[in-house]
Amino acid sequence: MTNITIIGMGMIGTSLGMALRSATNTASSLGTIHITGYDQDQKVCRIARDRLAIDTYAHNLEDAVAQAHVVVVATPVQAIRHLFAALTPMLAPDTIVTDVASTKSQIYTWAQEMLPSHVHFIGGHPMAGKEKAGPEAGDAELFRNAIYCLTPAPTASQHSLDLMEAIVATIGAKHYYIDPQEHDAYVAGISHLPFLLSTILVEATSRSAGWKEMALLAASGFRDVTRLASGDVIMHRDICMTNRDALIRWINDTVAILLETREALEQDDTDSIEALFARAQEVRDEWLATSPRLRPGEIAPGSLQNMERPNLFGFRSRKK
Amino acid sequence: MTNITIIGMGMIGTSLGMALRSATNTASSLGTIHITGYDQDQKVCRIARDRLAIDTYAHNLEDAVAQAHVVVVATPVQAIRHLFAALTPMLAPDTIVTDVASTKSQIYTWAQEMLPSHVHFIGGHPMAGKEKAGPEAGDAELFRNAIYCLTPAPTASQHSLDLMEAIVATIGAKHYYIDPQEHDAYVAGISHLPFLLSTILVEATSRSAGWKEMALLAASGFRDVTRLASGDVIMHRDICMTNRDALIRWINDTVAILLETREALEQDDTDSIEALFARAQEVRDEWLATSPRLRPGEIAPGSLQNMERPNLFGFRSRKK
Repeated sequence: MTNITIIGMGMIGTSLGMALRSATNTASSLGTIHITGYDQDQKVCRIARDRLAIDTYAHNLEDAVAQAHVVVVATPVQAIRHLFAALTPMLAPDTIVTDVASTKSQIYTWAQEMLPSHVHFIGGHPMAGKEKAGPEAGDAELFRNAIYCLTPAPTASQHSLDLMEAIVATIGAKHYYIDPQEHDAYVAGISHLPFLLSTILVEATSRSAGWKEMALLAASGFRDVTRLASGDVIMHRDICMTNRDALIRWINDTVAILLETREALEQDDTDSIEALFARAQEVRDEWLATSPRLRPGEIAPGSLQNMERPNLFGFRSRKK
Repeated sequence: MTNITIIGMGMIGTSLGMALRSATNTASSLGTIHITGYDQDQKVCRIARDRLAIDTYAHNLEDAVAQAHVVVVATPVQAIRHLFAALTPMLAPDTIVTDVASTKSQIYTWAQEMLPSHVHFIGGHPMAGKEKAGPEAGDAELFRNAIYCLTPAPTASQHSLDLMEAIVATIGAKHYYIDPQEHDAYVAGISHLPFLLSTILVEATSRSAGWKEMALLAASGFRDVTRLASGDVIMHRDICMTNRDALIRWINDTVAILLETREALEQDDTDSIEALFARAQEVRDEWLATSPRLRPGEIAPGSLQNMERPNLFGFRSRKK
């Protein structure tokens, strides 16, 4: 029996519970599991339980983690600091602590500073999401075929890594070991920058005096590029504030390319404009063909394999 | 009997033919129609005919337009200049000439300069599209509930406007009269800028040394924001080059907001970041609720009505 406690019954926490519980009857190396939920708001706990995301829910943090073998922190990033401090006296030896936040360096540092040395910290980030928030948006299929980044502390035991890998496999995702700083730099480019551009496109157009008429003309292209702007405000605020150095570098790169493009337009440089568009089309189509990223319910390619990190950046890769 | 000739059997030209022909058996104020197709590439004409987009196709431009009451030019923007010059000696009096291009000022000027005074020019732009090109991507439902911008020359007759409105209604779209310059400024913001940001996001991330690993982590958010980058290269090149002044203004606005955002991040100004994200979420959700933009096959809201332009900018509105 593995006792898993999920703290934070938002969209991701609820999806994780639903994915774990819906998998227990099929073959899973995890064995029998019992899931306890906890949230400051008891109402969302009841919704999560009604959606079969958890077996039971606790009324306070101490009860929530008392029997836990694995504690999953699924709150906005800024709340994690306080949670780690609150959890420290409550965690039994050999408890595994993980999280699901979109930035990893800051949380890695907090874990090193605050969590007791007798627990095993393994940061986590499933590369899956949707723009809807709350337990009602939970989806057992959210993680199917997604990459699941893992950023373990050097002291995490072999057993804790095995158990974490089993959890990832059970929800249908593929584990991927990565250095926290490297994770944050990369994810700033492929996740936080897209969110920011989506948001800034809405800001730029809606600031215009002509927005009311422009809104009538805007069609599915505008809808898709701005989809992420409808995402959770507090979650994205915390992500951007805890990953601002990486994000600022990507903003600088984006501004530089926008200014290059403006210069090509001003100089009537049709060839450079065509080359830019052709390159982006080719790169994007190749990316899509190699590893299509699917939403829940879309047909899965089944072509992705679990990936071990090559040891390029001096980060510990796993030996079995 | 109304003879309609479509020049250019790409995705839009083919979709237009399919939408018109699939509607002829139902109630349409257009009456019986006969559609002739023409393309420099006879192979795509055959594909368009096999897809029931056209009744017949011509082997040269002169035959294509000889009997036409309405000529729809559905080629990339830059080709339209040469087409207008070639068509000029071929067009019978009172022929209606329209186009479907994404920029309207340049084409309006070419029409004024080149087309004979005995034809009726009514520029057109259906606010619908997809990132796939060619007659195989044609879709009879593409224009359903879309806004269809019309930019008539001042000399266009009442009869020609009536006929053009009937064509727009027949394919399920809503006509919308707009000044060409105003159209280009607005569409640069809600269509060309989104394409450019989509493309520049691919360029920025794929220039990075870490792209290969980033590509593994990129998920559905990246996929949606970059969707437009897979669009037709030549079409978008021509759009950007013929609408560069408007696009440059939007690039400047976007850069300004990116730099404001960078400053807020650098100064740890959490409130400004949160306010930006909250504003964009609210504007986007309100836009989506007021006028959802649907892809072909999605459920239509049936809530949009044909819109007459209020005469705010001195542009002629229609009297009936």
